[in-house]
Amino acid sequence: MESWPPGGSGPAEAGRRLRGLRGADLAASASLLSGAGAEAGCSAPAVAAVLPAGGSGERMGVPTPKQFCPILERPLISYTLQALERVSWIKDIVVAVTGENMEAMKCIIQRYQHKGISLVESGVTRHRSIFNGLKALAEDQPNCRLSKPEVVIIHDAVRPFVEEDVLLKVVTAAKEHGCSDYDLEFGTECLHLALKYCHIKAKLIEGSPDLWKVTYKRDLYAAESIIKERISQQICVVMDTKEDEEHVGHRLEEMLKNELNHVKVTSGRDLQQIILEQCYNFVCVNVMTSDFEETQKLLNMLEESNLSILYPVVVISVQFLDYESVPFGQKMENLMQIREFAKQVKKRNILLYGLLVYYPQDEQKLQESLRQGATIIAALIKERNSGLIGQLLVA
Amino acid sequence: MESWPPGGSGPAEAGRRLRGLRGADLAASASLLSGAGAEAGCSAPAVAAVLPAGGSGERMGVPTPKQFCPILERPLISYTLQALERVSWIKDIVVAVTGENMEAMKCIIQRYQHKGISLVESGVTRHRSIFNGLKALAEDQPNCRLSKPEVVIIHDAVRPFVEEDVLLKVVTAAKEHGCSDYDLEFGTECLHLALKYCHIKAKLIEGSPDLWKVTYKRDLYAAESIIKERISQQICVVMDTKEDEEHVGHRLEEMLKNELNHVKVTSGRDLQQIILEQCYNFVCVNVMTSDFEETQKLLNMLEESNLSILYPVVVISVQFLDYESVPFGQKMENLMQIREFAKQVKKRNILLYGLLVYYPQDEQKLQESLRQGATIIAALIKERNSGLIGQLLVA
Repeated sequence: MESWPPGGSGPAEAGRRLRGLRGADLAASASLLSGAGAEAGCSAPAVAAVLPAGGSGERMGVPTPKQFCPILERPLISYTLQALERVSWIKDIVVAVTGENMEAMKCIIQRYQHKGISLVESGVTRHRSIFNGLKALAEDQPNCRLSKPEVVIIHDAVRPFVEEDVLLKVVTAAKEHGCSDYDLEFGTECLHLALKYCHIKAKLIEGSPDLWKVTYKRDLYAAESIIKERISQQICVVMDTKEDEEHVGHRLEEMLKNELNHVKVTSGRDLQQIILEQCYNFVCVNVMTSDFEETQKLLNMLEESNLSILYPVVVISVQFLDYESVPFGQKMENLMQIREFAKQVKKRNILLYGLLVYYPQDEQKLQESLRQGATIIAALIKERNSGLIGQLLVA
Repeated sequence: MESWPPGGSGPAEAGRRLRGLRGADLAASASLLSGAGAEAGCSAPAVAAVLPAGGSGERMGVPTPKQFCPILERPLISYTLQALERVSWIKDIVVAVTGENMEAMKCIIQRYQHKGISLVESGVTRHRSIFNGLKALAEDQPNCRLSKPEVVIIHDAVRPFVEEDVLLKVVTAAKEHGCSDYDLEFGTECLHLALKYCHIKAKLIEGSPDLWKVTYKRDLYAAESIIKERISQQICVVMDTKEDEEHVGHRLEEMLKNELNHVKVTSGRDLQQIILEQCYNFVCVNVMTSDFEETQKLLNMLEESNLSILYPVVVISVQFLDYESVPFGQKMENLMQIREFAKQVKKRNILLYGLLVYYPQDEQKLQESLRQGATIIAALIKERNSGLIGQLLVA
């Protein structure tokens, strides 16, 4: 028998946290489709999620319904699906969308490779959409591929930052509590629905501040900044040579560590592993050559890995400019190839930039160049601006 | 006698809008220090504002109190002061800050040239801070430079986007309504204060969505994006020649108009006027020369105007690269001077970037260059990234 709940947070602790919830967001509500699981103690309940996503987003002030508004070019609902998919114990996810948006939703699922998603048509109200989602999960539907769950999480499609621990609390509460009418007065219409029509009880669970609902245009801005910040926490530095530990590439790496002290700077010795760990930022340092061989290798690995399906990956190809080894004009001509590379890899959601670091003999000036280089790298990673791809920046 | 209210929104209409306010934000509350103004009918009441700003910002998750958190390098409270200063009929503004932050607040007022601001020490609670602010406005204080107002607006220091019309509603309601106890239950502790200790009545006014309170870190992100968007609505294009209407600078201007259809693109014929109208984005097109004479003139005008005190001003110096007129190497050397210029003007909050637009003979390729140039200009203006100043971008 699978141990439940996962992660070790015992029912007693979860129960304690669930009390005293004045003014809390209703992050998600859970309903028990059958009472059978409730007596099963610590067995893993079969959990499914229903996402009502038929809304028109009137308050957003933009023509696109908010669940389809793009954040870093990917629709908001895809982030919410990603957050639910990561939770291994959610077996099925049902999304209720309007007939009009059904095809668009299918494209989103395909493009961003979401798994285990079923679509139903939404109703004219949020309640009807939820009902349609629950119907799809009920056993008595003909040709139903879905397994009947014990617990169903109803989650807003426009709350992309839901964490596993909150979902766990919801499910634990659904299994454990008879729940109280007291909580009802602080809930939303969703709780009314559950109580009135399903003849079951409902419980309000406190969410984290990150669980807020994307409602206004400013929330889209905030969501974009949060996502950009999350994927900018790690930078991997790849070198074209490993022999000389004293070389200028390592000095740039040290400068990055000093200047960006909130960011984890990793050496790209085991690239496959770093890609697997979902690092979205790469600095490719070319000391020995002025071509893009090393960068090309990295780009090939990234393209094969599918890392950039969900988030734009930043690659900065760094060259050192010492005015001596190669004539400047010829070097520049080589370097301008980056514009073509950048156009190509943009199609795969990889943002490629070039950085030329001036390499003077004077030690103090070199320090200044490297610091400037670190500033530019930080700016490019932070903004992830596709309008500047293929540019050759100079530090 | 001055006509009241300004802007022509009559009391009847304002009154109608004030009803039915369930769940509305308490944007600002108003209290009548004396009843004398209330009977004066349509005369302009003497209005002051008190900003309690003694909070510690625990929920923000950052060490700086939220009212001092920087947005585009300027503290949040300065934006709120700016919003209140714009309202001509608010005569005095009193800010309550902790003794610890008194000096910092004085620096903010000086640096951003805020006028008519008085400082008082905040109390241990928000209520005491408001009380201290009101005391400063009362007549019986010794050495008080402030005039005793009829209406005092209490406004959160962390609501930077307050508009004149909402403040007008607040003041109109304070003058007009006896107000009802009914509204009390939807208010905050501030209303309790007014009712219990001042023996006056209070009224809740509905705010706009933009009036939201900066509470969490995500709200800082949202505020920054909103401000960036607001100051990116107009681009002024300055040319170094006016004779030939067919020249490539005008074609770039046309391209900007086509590509950035949500932005107002203005020709810089009357620069002084455009600066007065608070345009924060300039594209300086150099066709005749490869130096920065025209850009330098513009930078001088901007520095004299003080336009950049409140917001970073973007200047993009555009050169056309036709490979023929001047040898490439020499031209590049000239152009690299932009890095030094950029460092200098950054001290005055001007963000200078260079843009080199390739100028091929082939018409289709030229179109493509110009389009690429417009994309880069849009990206630079949108992001306002100080890490990339002095860069020479290539379209």
